Amino acid sequence: MKSLVAENTSLFHNTTSLVPNLPSLPPNNSKNGFSSSTTIKSFINLDQGDPMLFKEYWRKMSEKCTVVIKGCELLSYLSDLGNVCWFMMPELREAIKRLHALVGNADTNDKYIVVGNGSTQLFQAALYAFSSSSDEPMNVIAASPYYSEYEEQTDILHSGVHKWSGDAMKYDKNEAYIEVVTSPNNPDGSIRGPVVNNKKCESEGKLIHDLAYYWPHYTPITHKANHDLMLFTFSKCTGHAGSRIGWAIVKDKEIAKKMTKFIQMSSIGVSKESQIRVAKIIEVLCDIYENFKCSGSSKETELFFELSKCLMKERWEKLREVIKQSNDFSLPKFPKAYCNFTNESSETYPAFAWLKCNKDDDCESYLEKKLKILARGGTRFGSDPRYARVSLLGKAEDFEEFLKRLSIDMN
Amino acid sequence: MKSLVAENTSLFHNTTSLVPNLPSLPPNNSKNGFSSSTTIKSFINLDQGDPMLFKEYWRKMSEKCTVVIKGCELLSYLSDLGNVCWFMMPELREAIKRLHALVGNADTNDKYIVVGNGSTQLFQAALYAFSSSSDEPMNVIAASPYYSEYEEQTDILHSGVHKWSGDAMKYDKNEAYIEVVTSPNNPDGSIRGPVVNNKKCESEGKLIHDLAYYWPHYTPITHKANHDLMLFTFSKCTGHAGSRIGWAIVKDKEIAKKMTKFIQMSSIGVSKESQIRVAKIIEVLCDIYENFKCSGSSKETELFFELSKCLMKERWEKLREVIKQSNDFSLPKFPKAYCNFTNESSETYPAFAWLKCNKDDDCESYLEKKLKILARGGTRFGSDPRYARVSLLGKAEDFEEFLKRLSIDMN
Repeated sequence: MKSLVAENTSLFHNTTSLVPNLPSLPPNNSKNGFSSSTTIKSFINLDQGDPMLFKEYWRKMSEKCTVVIKGCELLSYLSDLGNVCWFMMPELREAIKRLHALVGNADTNDKYIVVGNGSTQLFQAALYAFSSSSDEPMNVIAASPYYSEYEEQTDILHSGVHKWSGDAMKYDKNEAYIEVVTSPNNPDGSIRGPVVNNKKCESEGKLIHDLAYYWPHYTPITHKANHDLMLFTFSKCTGHAGSRIGWAIVKDKEIAKKMTKFIQMSSIGVSKESQIRVAKIIEVLCDIYENFKCSGSSKETELFFELSKCLMKERWEKLREVIKQSNDFSLPKFPKAYCNFTNESSETYPAFAWLKCNKDDDCESYLEKKLKILARGGTRFGSDPRYARVSLLGKAEDFEEFLKRLSIDMN
Repeated sequence: MKSLVAENTSLFHNTTSLVPNLPSLPPNNSKNGFSSSTTIKSFINLDQGDPMLFKEYWRKMSEKCTVVIKGCELLSYLSDLGNVCWFMMPELREAIKRLHALVGNADTNDKYIVVGNGSTQLFQAALYAFSSSSDEPMNVIAASPYYSEYEEQTDILHSGVHKWSGDAMKYDKNEAYIEVVTSPNNPDGSIRGPVVNNKKCESEGKLIHDLAYYWPHYTPITHKANHDLMLFTFSKCTGHAGSRIGWAIVKDKEIAKKMTKFIQMSSIGVSKESQIRVAKIIEVLCDIYENFKCSGSSKETELFFELSKCLMKERWEKLREVIKQSNDFSLPKFPKAYCNFTNESSETYPAFAWLKCNKDDDCESYLEKKLKILARGGTRFGSDPRYARVSLLGKAEDFEEFLKRLSIDMN
């Protein structure tokens, strides 16, 4: 049998090599019931945020969203030489603008849009764009708990232009910095703004707003974000993670040019197949809203964000119900806010549960050893090991199995 | 009118800002004839190697190669967790193996295949994989003239793990190094092996073989390449550059794992839409050969490499014919070799012409100012400015216009 790749890739659970007889993941072989935690035989993998939750919706829309690509299409490297981001297809740019106009979560007026191979590549492009004019390596910081991959993405090449400098709350250098503001935050779902308040620091800070989860199914859309540099990813918006499409909305043309240059140097652009498919899916999604509002020819049950919000809300309610039964674990609480998109007041329903284990100092290890649940521990997020991040975007059977194991454990 | 992106992106001609009234590129507006060089009104862009030459072939195969992707497909980040390159789709791996088996240009037995967003990303992944265990930045070198982008791709982040150290012929440090061997070479089409022969250097060198052009339409396939790390790109194989698919064939599992990790950190994998499309196109290409050989149900005119080789040969013969008319320019000569794939002896027909200008010290500038031909000058390749690289993969009308301007200039 081939060895499991998990051992050496941080997308995957980083302690799996400790686990003997770990079965291949996926499929999560978790169909067998069990009567107590000692008989749990198979792991469920809730480490990555692989967005399988939305698949059922797209199954219904499968035909409408179909793209057909012929053999002679999309040959050239070039897409739109009149535009700063020369490898971005005009139909994708228009679709992205239309989507933000529909949702009202970001202002795209008079801004530059840069497409990337996921927001991961755009994060690095943004670091490059903000750092390249500096003599010293720029400090890259984010308030803890911060997304587990920022640190390694920043430092993988031991760059001389930027370096990871940890928790933004503790930043006290008199040096230029880039603060990453992730809102809603990954891992804990909190709504955030910049936190550096450093009297020592005379240098102006640059801000990257990672808004991957600022969509109506995860959180109320309270305002149209209008920052210097905003990152979005299609993976978390609709669940099409395999397409590897992200985009940046950028105010300053020079920054957009530098980001474009970075992506050119990294990969000479972005898959056109993905670009036209994402454009098509966004178009269908927006058309349904337009038809619902204008002609009534779409049904309410076809509205992506409302339907997906129901799924998220349902999972959160079920999870809170289980957690309530004991003091073994706790979850963050979120304030209600009015959503300008859904026109109702609601909580945040984050893509991840930031679970605190009250009976063990190492939540990740507890979940793994006791319940055979693979999650990502707090230390990976620059935080406390009593916490672990658990994906709530996985398949229904995995989520139900997760609840089952938690509740049996508590009894 | 929007400004031309060319000014700040090195994929594009880097001196266009010097040129007043440069029209948007493309389309190359070069249809108007002219009677002398002073009346040339429009630029033709032969700077990039955008492979439009093969489009006509794919137009004929368009229906056979069509892919249909439904809305609910390809959602997950994950492809094949049992494999080192967990984001590579099994059908693409099988297709790539089949293609190399058909062509006989690379040995894939007992090797790891890593997919990337073009070979550009894989080049950087290879640098990372070879460098990451070293304390000092590894020297990255290639024999001059070398591909114009290696230097900037190596140094873009001022990495502490690797640094560009120029011409491999001049390498005399007693330090670890990575030599990039590009064969056939970009820009000059020469067939190459490693060149470092450095008695001072006790450290073992690592080799990256960039075999982007080691396909039968460009050069005779004289042997099955069997190196530690070989890079290929679909862009130059079939001309589908917009798909951004490259692959590495790697002997050492640990190196393959590190490359996979780099690509994960850079872009969490590679577009699945592109992967399935490339798999489909390779499948059709190979099926045609199989049907031709076995059942005779394919026609000779459907054989991709033979047909494409004719196109390349024809362009080279026409170009040599024009060049022969004067001493103003010269071209490299290539020895004949027996091709195991086409079973005939033939020359190399490189994707680029490495043109030497005999009447001006700056070939790029001469072509640009006198003939309004955008090409890439020798200094960009660590070489002599009397040379310039001219793409021979462009559209037929651009190629014909190029010949016309050369021949009028010589009269």
